[in-house]
Amino acid sequence: MVKVGVAGVGMTKVGKLVSRSLRELTSEALMKAIDDAGGVKPDAIVVGNMLSSLVEQENLASLIADTAGLRGISGFKVEGACGSGGAAVLAGYSLVASGLFQVVAVVGVEKLSELPTPDVTRGLAWAADADYELIHGVSFSGLNALVMRNYMKKYGVSREEMAAWPVLMHENGYHNPYAHFRKRITISDVINSVTIADPIKLYDACPLSDGAAAVILAGSDVVRKLTDTPVFIAGVGNALDSTDITSRFDITSFIASNISTKQALRNAGLELKDIDIAEIHDAYSITAVISLEEIGLAPKGMGAKYVAEGRFRPGDRPAVNPSGGLKSRGHPVGATGVYQVAEVVMQLRGDFPGVKVGGDVGLTQNIGGVGSNVTTIILRR
Amino acid sequence: MVKVGVAGVGMTKVGKLVSRSLRELTSEALMKAIDDAGGVKPDAIVVGNMLSSLVEQENLASLIADTAGLRGISGFKVEGACGSGGAAVLAGYSLVASGLFQVVAVVGVEKLSELPTPDVTRGLAWAADADYELIHGVSFSGLNALVMRNYMKKYGVSREEMAAWPVLMHENGYHNPYAHFRKRITISDVINSVTIADPIKLYDACPLSDGAAAVILAGSDVVRKLTDTPVFIAGVGNALDSTDITSRFDITSFIASNISTKQALRNAGLELKDIDIAEIHDAYSITAVISLEEIGLAPKGMGAKYVAEGRFRPGDRPAVNPSGGLKSRGHPVGATGVYQVAEVVMQLRGDFPGVKVGGDVGLTQNIGGVGSNVTTIILRR
Repeated sequence: MVKVGVAGVGMTKVGKLVSRSLRELTSEALMKAIDDAGGVKPDAIVVGNMLSSLVEQENLASLIADTAGLRGISGFKVEGACGSGGAAVLAGYSLVASGLFQVVAVVGVEKLSELPTPDVTRGLAWAADADYELIHGVSFSGLNALVMRNYMKKYGVSREEMAAWPVLMHENGYHNPYAHFRKRITISDVINSVTIADPIKLYDACPLSDGAAAVILAGSDVVRKLTDTPVFIAGVGNALDSTDITSRFDITSFIASNISTKQALRNAGLELKDIDIAEIHDAYSITAVISLEEIGLAPKGMGAKYVAEGRFRPGDRPAVNPSGGLKSRGHPVGATGVYQVAEVVMQLRGDFPGVKVGGDVGLTQNIGGVGSNVTTIILRR
Repeated sequence: MVKVGVAGVGMTKVGKLVSRSLRELTSEALMKAIDDAGGVKPDAIVVGNMLSSLVEQENLASLIADTAGLRGISGFKVEGACGSGGAAVLAGYSLVASGLFQVVAVVGVEKLSELPTPDVTRGLAWAADADYELIHGVSFSGLNALVMRNYMKKYGVSREEMAAWPVLMHENGYHNPYAHFRKRITISDVINSVTIADPIKLYDACPLSDGAAAVILAGSDVVRKLTDTPVFIAGVGNALDSTDITSRFDITSFIASNISTKQALRNAGLELKDIDIAEIHDAYSITAVISLEEIGLAPKGMGAKYVAEGRFRPGDRPAVNPSGGLKSRGHPVGATGVYQVAEVVMQLRGDFPGVKVGGDVGLTQNIGGVGSNVTTIILRR
């Protein structure tokens, strides 16, 4: 297996970028990543995206390659709901690891802010189960609210403890120039914000964002020629759970997060204690809390309490979501998993422009659906 | 690089399967392929699909794995418009070739017949360019009609010569028990059928079909243990052209077909003369004719004439589309590329239940958009 590294990264600011097109955003991210990788020309592109169908456009690999002047290279789009970006990195990784391609660009993008909110809410629900869940009229936030209510009751977790996560994320994101929100909030801001789907409050939910991010992957020999600050993909993992949450034994567990983490660590030959920094998928406060537990950073039922106690901040080990996470950096759906990888690469290189945490080994975890598909990537400098 | 083989294949009948769900179709194809591969359990699944968003369902890898009793394995969906299936096989191939996974199931599916035709027509146009083409109100058939009209004028090709392709396809498909249409037609049937988008007639256009197909990929050592009739993936190729046809130097050429074919043959260490059988992407008569030329089976401008002269029939070398092709077997959009691979595998094994052509080496070519993304797979027994 070819050892795979990251030769360059690029990203756009995240936000409601109404006046910018999907073409424009992906080109910006891709050209920045190519520049960062010494101007190398990729021979394949993998696009992470969930909902371009809502803007009447599929076939994104062709569209993006052509716009970037890369007609004739290879590529395809990867979809795994909100986990599309992470899955795209895994697919790009295997294209290089197999020896099939030398240099692969992975580009994640989502651009939906021109649409009415109900259309986007409807599209996001396609991550859940149309036959078993959506038919009852439940929204994606509604499903996550069921998980949060069950979790708080089962483990005796308070509303205040659950609110500690978004407060930490807004503190971290305040320093990130790419973040959707750069605004500090308090526990009482969270608790007093409007209810989205009881018990989920506005500040428990990530925003829906526009944005694009790109990483250039290549074999380690090529990467060493292209950059003085190589970061390598030490391991990858990916696991699927049911799309519907009702058929699970315990809706407060994300077994796919657990399996995916173990797979990635085993693949990397590393242990959880080796991780200096993590970017995890906090679509909702409850998603972050359960992820912390499934990754192994907190015992079951203790995720929110650990955050409330002040763990996972910059300076702690691991620091979790120094970017501000989905909550504050934002959640450009199919791009999020690629943002995570780009951010951790910059942290390990020491050039992330927000809160710097440093370290040698990082982990990213990107989730699609309510924990129904999970990709974990281990990066090492 | 791990040498990759096909341990088993499975498919549903193609057609308007209104009463069957996407879940049901994919399970049938996947379980048949698993049975054909000696009951092996895949450790990853790659799903080829374009338009499940139209039936309000994404996250198909989770959905299909769970329905088949495979919760906990890895996977994602691959999209490349009508070329999604072929691109999914390429992605699955690299997952095995890299050594990352031992056994990978590639499942292609499309299930749209419950929708009103205008909705599906709209969705299919997402393979073209929303910003540069669809904004003018052109349909996907309309774009292909522009190509056909230009081609016929440029090369002096008659209406009768263009009609020879669908006649051959319906003759081949007549014998295929999985085919959408099993009905012989004549040149005059084609010419006298209703106009879809002048000069494209009804019988120049493939039907929109429901269906699912699956192939089980594994390393050659594993494949040899699972089946007595192994077929190997000797080479793969994939190339992207612009999504819009207007920015191309020549709209009667599909450069991505040409590049993809050469890449796959080079990757396989084979030449075109080694190919005994091919399954190509005849979404429209013009698509087949240009593909024959770009693959290298006819000089430019001679594709339709060669077909009219009686070439590419069973018994000729290569025999092209003994399945009946998209025209007669049908075009379950994101599944088509997987059907092609499954069909060629069965031909090389000698157990295809329709027209048998035999041989040692086969080629499949699956196209997304108007030649904007093309995957070519070389199979060898």
